[in-house]
Amino acid sequence: MADPANSSFPTVAVLGLGVMGGSLSRALRSRMPETRIVGWSPALGERDAALEQGVLTAAPSAWEEAVEEAALVVLAMPLEACLSILPDLDGVAPERATLMDVASLKGPVARIVDRAALGHRWVGAHPMAGSEGAGFDRSSATLFEGARVWLVTNAGGAPRIGPVADLWRTVGADPQEIGAEEHDEMMALVSHLPQLVSNALGGELARRGVDLPMLGPGARDTTRLAASNPEMWHDLLGHASPTLVASLRSVSATVSEIASALERSDVAAVERLMRETARWRTEA
Amino acid sequence: MADPANSSFPTVAVLGLGVMGGSLSRALRSRMPETRIVGWSPALGERDAALEQGVLTAAPSAWEEAVEEAALVVLAMPLEACLSILPDLDGVAPERATLMDVASLKGPVARIVDRAALGHRWVGAHPMAGSEGAGFDRSSATLFEGARVWLVTNAGGAPRIGPVADLWRTVGADPQEIGAEEHDEMMALVSHLPQLVSNALGGELARRGVDLPMLGPGARDTTRLAASNPEMWHDLLGHASPTLVASLRSVSATVSEIASALERSDVAAVERLMRETARWRTEA
Repeated sequence: MADPANSSFPTVAVLGLGVMGGSLSRALRSRMPETRIVGWSPALGERDAALEQGVLTAAPSAWEEAVEEAALVVLAMPLEACLSILPDLDGVAPERATLMDVASLKGPVARIVDRAALGHRWVGAHPMAGSEGAGFDRSSATLFEGARVWLVTNAGGAPRIGPVADLWRTVGADPQEIGAEEHDEMMALVSHLPQLVSNALGGELARRGVDLPMLGPGARDTTRLAASNPEMWHDLLGHASPTLVASLRSVSATVSEIASALERSDVAAVERLMRETARWRTEA
Repeated sequence: MADPANSSFPTVAVLGLGVMGGSLSRALRSRMPETRIVGWSPALGERDAALEQGVLTAAPSAWEEAVEEAALVVLAMPLEACLSILPDLDGVAPERATLMDVASLKGPVARIVDRAALGHRWVGAHPMAGSEGAGFDRSSATLFEGARVWLVTNAGGAPRIGPVADLWRTVGADPQEIGAEEHDEMMALVSHLPQLVSNALGGELARRGVDLPMLGPGARDTTRLAASNPEMWHDLLGHASPTLVASLRSVSATVSEIASALERSDVAAVERLMRETARWRTEA
């Protein structure tokens, strides 16, 4: 298989073997069989499973050992763990190694990278792919196929973008550059806002005693995100942006205005909103 | 094909040839080829198309003519049109004919039926199936396969339920009896509430300039209902229930509380809501 990334990263260290790290390891193993993939997870069971299934070349018990010969270090752990390990990588991973996280907010990572003076070695990545489940068991070699992957660098990191983008293309993804703050503003709108609105809607249906079998396709889709694992959101919620707060308030106000319009039988006001959003939602 | 409904309704009149009426006509034509299906639509183009495609046995230009020999009259038109035509059917459709509407609210229909003293002949049906599109072109013989169909009667209508339920089973649906008010309360929660919350969310994303290609699978699902045709909602919004208004206010309050919790970095409060709704949404 033609593989431009193969030569850039002969050894890849993957720290974290959950859905993200596990899926990237599986995809690399399948698309770039020559690559040495050294994986680490705090969970012995995940390291053993990944080794036994032939996904990893090696799985040492200490992350410091895992990164020793890496040309690319992938930080595939929750945001706070990622923020805390990043400065420690300096002096442990080889100086030439590219450092890449896959956290779904990029601003907090970019700021830590800046403080640790690691900008020339870091490429932040956010693959728009995931699973409602968690852990290596739920990882898949095809998770990133067709997925947009946002790539972020700090000053000095631009030369590292090309090989990282090639790697993502190799596993079937569609990488695109973006600024860290612009990325996080967008995520507040297209990820965090729908998530929390879905939780609020699901909460009301639960309080009213609605059972799942009563939901039609529309209600199922609208509340699907409410099933998301709260643990995976903990770190992201701690970094909630002012845009998210403002947008939640705006949605709250609109929902309340709809209630008032219906109460005074002002159907036209509700239809106006429906027409505007139908135009937006069908413009693709 | 064994067909218990065949003998009950040798001639079916379908008034309205949009997604609902068109799909029921197609399904009956395919599952009960012996049935005479006489269809009517105010749109000549729909009548012609349904005749040309062999879906209808006849398609007169006046609905009065369409119902002349009907054993079953299906009212497959918007709610207000349905409410206005129902009393007129008395004396035009044969006295023995069963009258069935397919409107998605049952209380307003049940009240008109009561006032017109048609309770002994009426079975209200609400198939939980549909399309974001509209018109005969978007109808499908398989629309009702696997769909729940709620059946409602007034006092005196019970004997009509069996043959109507058989007819829905013949087209692959799953009929179940319910009271009119109970049905409408449930629809306020599982249909109207998610619809309007999805519109409010879509409205905010549109105002913020979010383009559709930026949406991941979660945001796509959560806003899919926002694409619904506002015209199909006009009549339903005019009959909005106090439950819908109260639930909208409750969702609005929850979304606003989430904003305040995030603003004061009270992640635990948001996680609590997420845990509750995740439990509800995954309990199936």
